[in-house]
Amino acid sequence: MIGAGVIGRSWMYLFARAGCQTNVYDADPKQSEKAIAWLHDELKLESEAHNAGDRPSDCASLVTMQKSLEQALFDVRYVQESGPEQLERKQEMFRELDRSAAPDTVLASSTSTLDMSSIATGLKGARRCIVAHPVNPPHVVPVVELLPGKETSPDAVRQTQEFLTSIGQKPVLLLRYVHGFVLNRLQVALIREAIDLVIQGVADVDAVDAVVRDGLGLRWALMGPFGVGNTNADGGLRDYFSRYRGALIGLMNDLGPTPSFESDQIERLGRATDEMLGGMPQTELLRWRDRMIQKLRLVKDADPGPARKKQTHAS
Amino acid sequence: MIGAGVIGRSWMYLFARAGCQTNVYDADPKQSEKAIAWLHDELKLESEAHNAGDRPSDCASLVTMQKSLEQALFDVRYVQESGPEQLERKQEMFRELDRSAAPDTVLASSTSTLDMSSIATGLKGARRCIVAHPVNPPHVVPVVELLPGKETSPDAVRQTQEFLTSIGQKPVLLLRYVHGFVLNRLQVALIREAIDLVIQGVADVDAVDAVVRDGLGLRWALMGPFGVGNTNADGGLRDYFSRYRGALIGLMNDLGPTPSFESDQIERLGRATDEMLGGMPQTELLRWRDRMIQKLRLVKDADPGPARKKQTHAS
Repeated sequence: MIGAGVIGRSWMYLFARAGCQTNVYDADPKQSEKAIAWLHDELKLESEAHNAGDRPSDCASLVTMQKSLEQALFDVRYVQESGPEQLERKQEMFRELDRSAAPDTVLASSTSTLDMSSIATGLKGARRCIVAHPVNPPHVVPVVELLPGKETSPDAVRQTQEFLTSIGQKPVLLLRYVHGFVLNRLQVALIREAIDLVIQGVADVDAVDAVVRDGLGLRWALMGPFGVGNTNADGGLRDYFSRYRGALIGLMNDLGPTPSFESDQIERLGRATDEMLGGMPQTELLRWRDRMIQKLRLVKDADPGPARKKQTHAS
Repeated sequence: MIGAGVIGRSWMYLFARAGCQTNVYDADPKQSEKAIAWLHDELKLESEAHNAGDRPSDCASLVTMQKSLEQALFDVRYVQESGPEQLERKQEMFRELDRSAAPDTVLASSTSTLDMSSIATGLKGARRCIVAHPVNPPHVVPVVELLPGKETSPDAVRQTQEFLTSIGQKPVLLLRYVHGFVLNRLQVALIREAIDLVIQGVADVDAVDAVVRDGLGLRWALMGPFGVGNTNADGGLRDYFSRYRGALIGLMNDLGPTPSFESDQIERLGRATDEMLGGMPQTELLRWRDRMIQKLRLVKDADPGPARKKQTHAS
């Protein structure tokens, strides 16, 4: 685990919880120390919440802070890099990783914006480099977007899929690079229309959010847009898309433009969101989100429906 | 309950389950009979699934099929109309409803496309007419979009909010008419980008859906786009929108256009969706969805987080 910020520490928790010996390295050792302290706090809260027992309370003992990159990479099978989002810094880091890690070790990056073809360009070990972009926080949300670079080998893809699946994640294979990957594009498609509806005076912030959390989101936690579309007409997706073709095209063409995000617009949306959240402190809100997502996953795992025969979502 | 199709019968179930004496009327009595037979089937399945007990198994006895509109409206406090989506037919129906229902009875329409200002135009009782657009099926998904017409009285809005809340729904007040209301606009915003990602070869149907059902959707079942945005940066929504302003604008401007929905495109997406669903029959898929949504709602109700102090989502 290279880079011990908010994403890195969550990966660390995930790896250790799955029983993996985990080395932590950050150029700034204070970051590693903070990450390990955070892990202990999280595990304490977890064991209080669950009367201990159902989680290995000693998983922190699997985590070792390393003071040099070489030591951190020694005898390691999988590397997850979560450093700063700047191409030059990632390139430099991957040069170092490629130099020090054993030849078959997968080198994965948490980047949400960069293409592995650019990061690993010219590297001897480009074939074992891959983007593995998690959803924050990865120890709670299972999806990981996998994006091979031009030189990434099918074997490295398969190894990454297998490893992530074995620790409980849901790797999703992307077929080519696009700005924002899949997750952030879908996310901003919803945010763009949500903001426009508020700006146009169609509904306030709380109303728009309620339509999602008590309506659309209950379905999207079970099925994506294609699965839901399949349930939107008796005859399935084809029926939905053909019968409502005109209405769908009309509505899609009428969707709002990109908002300005000027400071008064941001302030107005921020104030309405504060009001909706009723002053719940951010730490408490995040803890509630994480705890709830874990509960929703348990409900889904117990009755996976159409996903019951699938082990991975790789294509 | 006027109009006993798929939406109407689900309202009927909801009303009866909440303990309301419910009259059912459809111009075609066979539709009413079918709806009541469906209710009995559903209740039987429910009681099998729950070893009976936790639902009033006799709620079907609260439902009465009526052969005339006048009888159906006699002594009724709330009317939910779920007839065909054609303006002239809705206008005609609302003329009849307004003529026969007691003067303070709320007349609500399930329309997903029409404006109550147009439906109730010129009606003596226009003040008690309102759009109450549910998510399919309303006895499972709680959100109801409320859209008053120009002449709808604040009192009718309040009555509708109170009644729907009392039977366990989450009414959401829209401030003005817009094509598709809030729900369908948000839904198609996601579908549009989802289709474009598949067409552009970025990911296949299952991968796009997995990003939602195992990623974004787990958060959207808890919080809408503004609530989630608030958790996407340490400093909340303002921080998220200001810090990532450039990236958000860039990504939003890069979102895909409206797809053609030509038949080969529909066929290709339909085939991939069939494959993803692994041949699960539609009835089984819908039962799974409905059962799972009910379970997710129980999890949320037990730990409602920032919504804990809210009784309605009316602004």
